[in-house]
Amino acid sequence: MTQRKLTRDDLRAAAEKYKNWGKWGPADEIGTLNYTSAEDIVAAARLVKKGKVISLALNFDQHGPQGAKSTYPAMGRINPVHTMLRTGTDAYSGVLDHRGIRAADDMVVMPLQCGTQWDGLGHIFYENYMWNGYDCREVTSNGAQKCGIEKTKNRMVGRGVFLDVARAKGKKWLEDGYAITCADLDQTAEMQKVKVRRGDFVIVRTGQMEAKLEAKSWDGYPGGDAPGFGFETLEWIKRTELAALASDTWGCEVRPNESEKGINQPWHWITIPMMGMTMGEIFYVKELSEDCAADGVYEFLFVAPAIPITGAVGSPTNPLAIK
Amino acid sequence: MTQRKLTRDDLRAAAEKYKNWGKWGPADEIGTLNYTSAEDIVAAARLVKKGKVISLALNFDQHGPQGAKSTYPAMGRINPVHTMLRTGTDAYSGVLDHRGIRAADDMVVMPLQCGTQWDGLGHIFYENYMWNGYDCREVTSNGAQKCGIEKTKNRMVGRGVFLDVARAKGKKWLEDGYAITCADLDQTAEMQKVKVRRGDFVIVRTGQMEAKLEAKSWDGYPGGDAPGFGFETLEWIKRTELAALASDTWGCEVRPNESEKGINQPWHWITIPMMGMTMGEIFYVKELSEDCAADGVYEFLFVAPAIPITGAVGSPTNPLAIK
Amino acid sequence: MTQRKLTRDDLRAAAEKYKNWGKWGPADEIGTLNYTSAEDIVAAARLVKKGKVISLALNFDQHGPQGAKSTYPAMGRINPVHTMLRTGTDAYSGVLDHRGIRAADDMVVMPLQCGTQWDGLGHIFYENYMWNGYDCREVTSNGAQKCGIEKTKNRMVGRGVFLDVARAKGKKWLEDGYAITCADLDQTAEMQKVKVRRGDFVIVRTGQMEAKLEAKSWDGYPGGDAPGFGFETLEWIKRTELAALASDTWGCEVRPNESEKGINQPWHWITIPMMGMTMGEIFYVKELSEDCAADGVYEFLFVAPAIPITGAVGSPTNPLAIK
Amino acid sequence: MTQRKLTRDDLRAAAEKYKNWGKWGPADEIGTLNYTSAEDIVAAARLVKKGKVISLALNFDQHGPQGAKSTYPAMGRINPVHTMLRTGTDAYSGVLDHRGIRAADDMVVMPLQCGTQWDGLGHIFYENYMWNGYDCREVTSNGAQKCGIEKTKNRMVGRGVFLDVARAKGKKWLEDGYAITCADLDQTAEMQKVKVRRGDFVIVRTGQMEAKLEAKSWDGYPGGDAPGFGFETLEWIKRTELAALASDTWGCEVRPNESEKGINQPWHWITIPMMGMTMGEIFYVKELSEDCAADGVYEFLFVAPAIPITGAVGSPTNPLAIK
Repeated sequence: MTQRKLTRDDLRAAAEKYKNWGKWGPADEIGTLNYTSAEDIVAAARLVKKGKVISLALNFDQHGPQGAKSTYPAMGRINPVHTMLRTGTDAYSGVLDHRGIRAADDMVVMPLQCGTQWDGLGHIFYENYMWNGYDCREVTSNGAQKCGIEKTKNRMVGRGVFLDVARAKGKKWLEDGYAITCADLDQTAEMQKVKVRRGDFVIVRTGQMEAKLEAKSWDGYPGGDAPGFGFETLEWIKRTELAALASDTWGCEVRPNESEKGINQPWHWITIPMMGMTMGEIFYVKELSEDCAADGVYEFLFVAPAIPITGAVGSPTNPLAIK
Repeated sequence: MTQRKLTRDDLRAAAEKYKNWGKWGPADEIGTLNYTSAEDIVAAARLVKKGKVISLALNFDQHGPQGAKSTYPAMGRINPVHTMLRTGTDAYSGVLDHRGIRAADDMVVMPLQCGTQWDGLGHIFYENYMWNGYDCREVTSNGAQKCGIEKTKNRMVGRGVFLDVARAKGKKWLEDGYAITCADLDQTAEMQKVKVRRGDFVIVRTGQMEAKLEAKSWDGYPGGDAPGFGFETLEWIKRTELAALASDTWGCEVRPNESEKGINQPWHWITIPMMGMTMGEIFYVKELSEDCAADGVYEFLFVAPAIPITGAVGSPTNPLAIK
Repeated sequence: MTQRKLTRDDLRAAAEKYKNWGKWGPADEIGTLNYTSAEDIVAAARLVKKGKVISLALNFDQHGPQGAKSTYPAMGRINPVHTMLRTGTDAYSGVLDHRGIRAADDMVVMPLQCGTQWDGLGHIFYENYMWNGYDCREVTSNGAQKCGIEKTKNRMVGRGVFLDVARAKGKKWLEDGYAITCADLDQTAEMQKVKVRRGDFVIVRTGQMEAKLEAKSWDGYPGGDAPGFGFETLEWIKRTELAALASDTWGCEVRPNESEKGINQPWHWITIPMMGMTMGEIFYVKELSEDCAADGVYEFLFVAPAIPITGAVGSPTNPLAIK
Repeated sequence: MTQRKLTRDDLRAAAEKYKNWGKWGPADEIGTLNYTSAEDIVAAARLVKKGKVISLALNFDQHGPQGAKSTYPAMGRINPVHTMLRTGTDAYSGVLDHRGIRAADDMVVMPLQCGTQWDGLGHIFYENYMWNGYDCREVTSNGAQKCGIEKTKNRMVGRGVFLDVARAKGKKWLEDGYAITCADLDQTAEMQKVKVRRGDFVIVRTGQMEAKLEAKSWDGYPGGDAPGFGFETLEWIKRTELAALASDTWGCEVRPNESEKGINQPWHWITIPMMGMTMGEIFYVKELSEDCAADGVYEFLFVAPAIPITGAVGSPTNPLAIK
């Protein structure tokens, strides 16, 4: 890993090198999710051997990571606001009885990327383009006319592979600013005796979320410094032909970024709009990490459906590892 | 099926008869979802043979069923309101460039039961009680302190069985007001050569949603008259020991209800608070129906995680039938 | 009034003719509200003689005009959604007592233009410009960086003049599609023995809202056909040098519009971005109409503060006529 | 002022002593706002002599006081979330042109008590009662069936009197925990040569908000320790027969409270449900303070309409002092 800061020229070169536009036809809106075949799904289902389901979602509530202190500018995201439309206290008070039924009802207000979530392909633009060369003006105030998260409706199923990089490196968690390398990923896989294959859903643990949970404070987590994927891992992503990649940090990518001032999240510039890779963030992997360490099995059936909100550029999800 | 209207005494008797309180211990918060065992999950995964994933969710947008005309009082639910926090048009206009990244972001405001959804066990009360005998005052304006939907986080996985009652009865769709009987369910299963077993997730098709989609109008759907489960199916639910039940209507239960004036949704009074049965509503089953009719296979791996919104009494879901 | 449809050339000519850009300096963000002087406010206060306050607001709730049927494309606005965060039923149920106080709290989700409202100067653009020649890209997903409604914070006070055009023309209400002319406005003022002066807040009654209220249906109101200002009234607005103009319809302007296909709301194209005129819509004027007819006094102190939501392009308001 | 902590017995005695129930009839829903007569409004309008309008509202945005650190339990209120439905960047990008008009539109999500606001009479309960003896169960998840803020629609107009207690005591701001006494209020009025009269709207400055603004941090403001009205001022409120009272703090009342553990906001227990007094909070009075100090005039026309959200227990407001 060079210490030289990435420039716009570097990004331009990477954009060309890793561009998958057109690979699945000019009308494609789901990118690397296409890598997962029906056969892969059948094979992934065969990995279910214990009948154990592990959720990789944080609960969605006011204790979520949004609103924590950050040294970076705020993104304007809030934690979910859950409000009741009818309650058990209404029931108890007798005020529902004219309806002939005692029922509670509720509502949520939430940024779609406030918690455990998929970044859809409408989330990041490269210059005036989004995935597959679509014009960025396809994402208007009216939502994403192309690459809306609803296009992934029946796609988030496949073989899950968990790469516990922190554990492989003998650490409780990677330190902020640590850029995960291709070698880290390969060595982790090797130590875990698991191979990443085309169409896989790869989940990488940095341990950063657990550090925050242990500290009982999210300060520094949302948009802050973090361990995460180095720019060079674009090569690894290309080579492995994975379907989607997820991590336990706010934004997958190492922060501070490896780029010059004025370029924020350089890895994102390439992964989403150029490669067409859907990305999972804020995944809770503590329980999965412990389970895999215990049984030595780092592959499983992975099912993580997005809520198909039409035109959304992201979605909350409750990702399940089924072993 | 008698024409006599159900009275409060009938409900009281049914409440006693079908009560599952305590069955899974005094601290249980998930009810019949307990029926699904680890072995059931392993076996369900073995049903994946084609690698085909079928989503049973409607897209979540302003074209959803809420707000349609109804002859019944409105419930106050609206369709999802999806708004953008940053857009591709912002990107194109150059106003994001000071951030060093061109990204879109978004937000949703939605009643949790506005579309394809799980009714959690905090949704309905019987007198002053909720599932397992908890006090209904556990569901306050602050949410459900007991039986919140987040308790089901790693539970919505198992064998799915699809009962296409409309098709079995040779109809495009059942008519509004038709009360599905135990015999209907048994005969459908028999015709389809599928057996419902303990711990299954059973999805029943009335065809009503397709009638509305074909009419290009949801009028009469939300809270309106509908085909659906008759009160007697409580017996069938008890006998089959299913994990959860879902349908393609707004509220599963037949409407007009089979009860006296003043009793609304009598079947709900029993299923949720007394039996502890989680219920799926507004499931889109057209594609599943066609697929099952084509291959003659009415069982599959079913994965339908709720979004674990803490204290919620329901949740949108993107249920997947994996065949 | 010619029957010839307005063309883009007509709009271009009007834009030039009525342009007020620069009139109050290059940094101005409130346009014609500048017409109201301190002396005007003192004089307006002297009009208070009965001590009667008349609200011109509809209540904000689910019975508002949004969501009604329309033959025009929907705008995506909903009625306000008011939800409780704590309730009296919570209090009664004892679940608040650990807080040491029994209190209710609430929340609203609302489009800012869903009810009685001010259109701010960031609401409409002429080509790539907004009021005073600001670039339209000043209104991003992050709100209006220029001409936000908060800039009017201490401005919505002055002499109110009510022009009851429907009554002056001897009608219960003007018919949909009727274009109010300059002569209509002058004759109404004359019949009412009131003169419109520089800096006034002029409220015009078409009666359309009362027609809808009487019909107990808002169908056709939001975005539908309506009586309203004809394009020629731009001349009257210019001549009178009024501060702001309001009406009892959804959009002030006559509908169907007087323009060619492809040009929607031509009068708006000029009033807001070119003239800098803030506009009130969905004003409820029934009570004011009756009061003015009864006492023959059509002028009053008018106070209608916007809620200063930073960067908003509109605001709900509770406009008060104080006589 | 005794150092003895207020007990439930003290509150019970005060509740009896200050109870105004029935004073304006059994159907009254606005309490002390009834004190303002038509003659008072006419007289108040005569106070407008400079034509100067001073807004007492903070802007409503993400920089508001909610979400700041507090040593007390959080109330769950957030700052307003303002989102755009259409933008100038959409306009610039050409994506609105099919509509025939380039327009921006927007929306807000906000707790009604997140900024400058009126506490309505449905906000606080005394045991199972609200203002005028109504049952607290009138405030359900469906809103306040009695005493909703919309009932004040045409009431928030009258003589405003500003009592700059901090300035009168020679301080930049009163310290947190300082309980304002009746004598403080009387002496301030005397020094300012202004008399509080029946039906007045009284605005009291502690300076606390300016301390927070100067510190550029709201930490400690929402729900935190503050200077404010001591319990004994109930007597002053009763004696003056004021219409409504407002201050520049989060909750008007001194904090820490003067009560025993387990009793939170004892003054509120009496003012709202027992006396029927509407209360203004989070008023921004810096500019008013400077203006009054400069011209020596502490009375003015006060107009502060609530947004008439049906069934609301509070409302944002943009209060205007018109001098």
